[in-house]
Amino acid sequence: MFVLGIDPGLTRMGYGVVEKSPSGIRAVAVGVIRTDKDSRISERLLELHRDLTAIIEEHHIDAAAIEQVFSNLNRATITGTGRASGVAMLAIAQAGIPVVEYTPSAVKMALTGYGAADKQQVQRVVQMRLGLEAAPKPADAADALAIAVCHVQAAGLQIRLDKAASA
Amino acid sequence: MFVLGIDPGLTRMGYGVVEKSPSGIRAVAVGVIRTDKDSRISERLLELHRDLTAIIEEHHIDAAAIEQVFSNLNRATITGTGRASGVAMLAIAQAGIPVVEYTPSAVKMALTGYGAADKQQVQRVVQMRLGLEAAPKPADAADALAIAVCHVQAAGLQIRLDKAASA
Repeated sequence: MFVLGIDPGLTRMGYGVVEKSPSGIRAVAVGVIRTDKDSRISERLLELHRDLTAIIEEHHIDAAAIEQVFSNLNRATITGTGRASGVAMLAIAQAGIPVVEYTPSAVKMALTGYGAADKQQVQRVVQMRLGLEAAPKPADAADALAIAVCHVQAAGLQIRLDKAASA
Repeated sequence: MFVLGIDPGLTRMGYGVVEKSPSGIRAVAVGVIRTDKDSRISERLLELHRDLTAIIEEHHIDAAAIEQVFSNLNRATITGTGRASGVAMLAIAQAGIPVVEYTPSAVKMALTGYGAADKQQVQRVVQMRLGLEAAPKPADAADALAIAVCHVQAAGLQIRLDKAASA
């Protein structure tokens, strides 16, 4: 099962793909889709949609998770990030893939057991789970990978809870 | 020339289509795309994109304008409106149509000569220009029509300025 994590942004959209198999979880792809600040917004949204659709197809994604737009951003950034996240959710939905949203603190809580954990603590857990020697760069790519790992973990927990409830 | 105006929103996306010809300007279509608040956001964005794409094709749109996301909305509404506006701009860009953004005060200024005009003043000008007996309802549809009229007027002004500059 291939899971996509997205850290949405208009200038830098982080993405991370992990594979969950019976033998564990591994990182498949991680990176950032960048768009030029000097380009028209419509052109930048077109690029994000095109590149993300290509990533979804290339990696045969089964499930996706996206970070909720930060509420502590300034209003101009919220609008840009909101637009980018809308286009990302659309690309995922157009591929028929279910997408779930996580707040930043839900991701931290799922991975470290502490909702106010700092980014380094989160990244250490992600590195350990995926057997990576260093955190991916830039931060948006690392955050996207953390969201994907969080989603795998939450999905696994849900399956265990469902099994316990039906036992 | 067919011009599309959009008043973006996740629950109600207003649209208005006007035709500009040598004999004047007339309203062609006006309405609202609604999505269900209880549906998943990804499903709602999919619906907005699908319906707006159909409207663009049906009316052979040549140019489009969209209202900038209000800066005085609360943060949750900004995120929803931002996502909806991102998906709208994407649908327009995917059809190869140029799209321009106007602030609410720019629309008021263009139509009434006064950036702080109230909605009724704006709607009276739109009615007069389009020869309508009443303002379209709901408000999102009327606002979208105003944005289309504003864009026709701004485009006309630009052409006159270009002619004057090259004369």
